[in-house]
Amino acid sequence: MRTKIAAVVFPGFELLDLFGPLELLALVGEDVSISIISKNLKTIRSGQGPSIVADSLIEDAFEFDLLLIPGGIGTRKEVDNTPFINSLARLAEECDTVATVCTGSALLARTGLLDAKQATSNKIAFDWVTRQNPKVQWLRKARWVVDGKFYTSSGVAAGMDMTVALIRDLFGNTTAREVIRKAEYSWNEDSEKDPFA
Amino acid sequence: MRTKIAAVVFPGFELLDLFGPLELLALVGEDVSISIISKNLKTIRSGQGPSIVADSLIEDAFEFDLLLIPGGIGTRKEVDNTPFINSLARLAEECDTVATVCTGSALLARTGLLDAKQATSNKIAFDWVTRQNPKVQWLRKARWVVDGKFYTSSGVAAGMDMTVALIRDLFGNTTAREVIRKAEYSWNEDSEKDPFA
Repeated sequence: MRTKIAAVVFPGFELLDLFGPLELLALVGEDVSISIISKNLKTIRSGQGPSIVADSLIEDAFEFDLLLIPGGIGTRKEVDNTPFINSLARLAEECDTVATVCTGSALLARTGLLDAKQATSNKIAFDWVTRQNPKVQWLRKARWVVDGKFYTSSGVAAGMDMTVALIRDLFGNTTAREVIRKAEYSWNEDSEKDPFA
Repeated sequence: MRTKIAAVVFPGFELLDLFGPLELLALVGEDVSISIISKNLKTIRSGQGPSIVADSLIEDAFEFDLLLIPGGIGTRKEVDNTPFINSLARLAEECDTVATVCTGSALLARTGLLDAKQATSNKIAFDWVTRQNPKVQWLRKARWVVDGKFYTSSGVAAGMDMTVALIRDLFGNTTAREVIRKAEYSWNEDSEKDPFA
């Protein structure tokens, strides 16, 4: 059975937060499908300039297995967007696995689902992120953190290291090794080794 | 003066080949601008599924400084698309710097501009790439190769390592270090160290 991945986008999302993990997940092959979901179906502009197109509306997004939430400058606005956070909460509750990259963890923290759980985030924006919900057990020194079904990573490129771990957990070590070989990706496989903390 | 970056896309481009380098280049800051250019202004679907929107047409693309050419499954078709290769050749001749990722080097090789120059490409597709133009001095073992104004990288994720080197060459070592700190990117800085060869 396919693993259905929903990747949420919003204006000002960070390009690599989204496409680093999606590239690696796509390399798993026919066992995954990827949908880009958004608040509307207009063109969504990234924080870096390039624009993408969503596949479906967040309110129509049901029966996904894995939710990916990127960060980016746009999170500064979206943390206060209650309808959006409520939609994220519903999706995150439904999904078996939820992964955030960079300041995407601030959005997930606002749903309340990370309360009393361990999580991490971008290092430069760390203090802003932790203020979004102090009930989360924020870990400053970690490349990524897994607590139950929640995977949270440090800034931008760390999302790819987390994703390889997630692929290993969901699809097995052989698949994870095959993915990094195809992507020619030098995986930093120790989640506790964080050169940017 | 701004460095104007043109990133060429085509149906079936590889997500990370494009957005890994663009993320890092965007982190240079106000000294760069990024344009996505294409054969038409319709939605362009990546090889992994997600679709993006181009900013301008390839025939209207003039006065750029840096040309980025991603690879992807779509290159198999585009190597035989003469008008597209001719447009790439014109742009590549005009630009001070040309960078390719993965099988993007096959497209550049077809322009003839890499003849008698050193270059590399994706490891899994290496034999197909070299057949596109045997006059290129293809190097099988290299994370990336620089020959004059041409930067070519190995597969997918190798494009980010090449891009950090390119940023260092164009904007200086301090800027390159700042970019990798912001991206929390563990740079593999030895171009000759290629674990996937």
